[in-house]
Amino acid sequence: MTKNEMIYEGKAKKMWSTKECEDYLIVEFKDSLTAFNGEKKSEEVGKGALNNKISTEIFHLLEKNYIKTALVEMIDDNHQLVKKVDIIPLEVIARNIATGSLTKRLGIKDGTVLPFTLVEFCYKDDDLGDPILNDEHALILKAVKDQSELDYLKAEIRKINEILKDFFAKKGLKLVDFKIEFGKDKDGNILLADEISPDSCRFWDMETNEKLDKDRFRQGLGGVKVAYEEVLKRILS
Amino acid sequence: MTKNEMIYEGKAKKMWSTKECEDYLIVEFKDSLTAFNGEKKSEEVGKGALNNKISTEIFHLLEKNYIKTALVEMIDDNHQLVKKVDIIPLEVIARNIATGSLTKRLGIKDGTVLPFTLVEFCYKDDDLGDPILNDEHALILKAVKDQSELDYLKAEIRKINEILKDFFAKKGLKLVDFKIEFGKDKDGNILLADEISPDSCRFWDMETNEKLDKDRFRQGLGGVKVAYEEVLKRILS
Ligand SMILES: Nc1ncnc2c1ncn2[C@@H]1O[C@H](COP(=O)(O)OP(=O)(O)O)[C@@H](O)[C@H]1O
Ligand SMILES: Nc1ncnc2c1ncn2[C@@H]1O[C@H](COP(=O)(O)OP(=O)(O)O)[C@@H](O)[C@H]1O
Ligand SMILES: [Mg+2]
Ligand SMILES: [Mg+2]
Repeated sequence: MTKNEMIYEGKAKKMWSTKECEDYLIVEFKDSLTAFNGEKKSEEVGKGALNNKISTEIFHLLEKNYIKTALVEMIDDNHQLVKKVDIIPLEVIARNIATGSLTKRLGIKDGTVLPFTLVEFCYKDDDLGDPILNDEHALILKAVKDQSELDYLKAEIRKINEILKDFFAKKGLKLVDFKIEFGKDKDGNILLADEISPDSCRFWDMETNEKLDKDRFRQGLGGVKVAYEEVLKRILS
Repeated sequence: MTKNEMIYEGKAKKMWSTKECEDYLIVEFKDSLTAFNGEKKSEEVGKGALNNKISTEIFHLLEKNYIKTALVEMIDDNHQLVKKVDIIPLEVIARNIATGSLTKRLGIKDGTVLPFTLVEFCYKDDDLGDPILNDEHALILKAVKDQSELDYLKAEIRKINEILKDFFAKKGLKLVDFKIEFGKDKDGNILLADEISPDSCRFWDMETNEKLDKDRFRQGLGGVKVAYEEVLKRILS
């Protein structure tokens, strides 16, 4: 498949229609890093390729575990072929350990292991700052059709969390939390879409709690690319 | 019953233990008005007495409709006798029409009639700014024992909303939204507690949409006391 026109440029990726088929998109992973809803910005040469490879590996793992995804295949270092979906405008978040915005919002100590995996929905709207929602908000905003779709998203992210938590534990990484997106294909199937990478997950080293994810950029810790390379190395190990 | 010692002074009320019985409290309604989590403050002589009377009338109406409340009786202009409860640290909110924080947070047009009554939980914590919660947050914070308690609170506020919406409609007032608190008595019964007044509800005149509640203070519209008097007058009409 070959690129036709760019239909969207986001903070981390460009989406291209394909010359051959309108049901597919080509995703181009950019080297840009952004945080705090785009307020902090930078470039890291090679980051796009790393996220492309990491996300492809993770989506393959999930496919093997019967999670339906929009990924078709990796094309080259910076490109993926994916099924085009209507993105459900929710950031679906799972948290195993409290950190980041959760600790500030609710006064929970950073690093607290949560009594169960917390699932959150945020409304995917940069202008509003991706506000947190309860189920009824999501229905009023018509982000989904009905409660059963919300329940499906919750069940699906819990399954994904179990698969990934176990996988990364074997690689010496704690899966602290992560954010995913879902979309509906032309037949109405809900598929896991977008990416799963150190941009959208928090990984802490099992022994040292060293951060191996975008928090290195958010918090100005340096060594962003080295950390992403380490995550890929462990996934492939 | 007579006042013993002041056990808590809040933004709108003082709570006193009684000389006679430790299961009861005397509530003193103050004349102070606060908004934006205490950032804006004022006094309005007579406001405390108005809220005391309005809240007493509303709690009596709810009791008649089989809602269990902590109210025992009004003592005098500024005082109520109530059952002492362990307050559940949730602000339970019902919204029939979108206004205020909801419209800003979610980009919903002010005045939009919601497709169903929206119920929200906020964590009652002034230091954190009463953050909005989903059900799982409330469980992690141990605000309640389990999901069935959350479901009870939701069902209860929906019942209360139906009773009050109908009642106020007959008085020419739209019940736009309101916030309530619940607590557990010494036997573990969940009772409606605190107050229901123009401090904690939004009332709009049915014909003119004139605001007859604390938004007059929040938005500096003036005529706060006149509005509260009007609400009491209509309740008693
Ligand atoms: N399979 C897909 N089909 C359609 N849209 C997708 C798919 N996967 C991801 N997207 C959307 O494409 C965009 C990817 O670019 P990104 O840089 O992540 O954007 P953003 O800055 O909006 O997060 C996102 O808006 C995402 O929701
Ligand atoms: N029946 C009751 N038993 C115990 N506490 C109550 C009861 N009713 C209300 N309260 C609590 O007493 C306080 C009332 O004072 P208020 O000025 O409303 O306080 P705040 O500024 O914290 O909202 C609140 O903290 C409320 O939760
Ligand atoms: Mg994105
Ligand atoms: Mg109060």
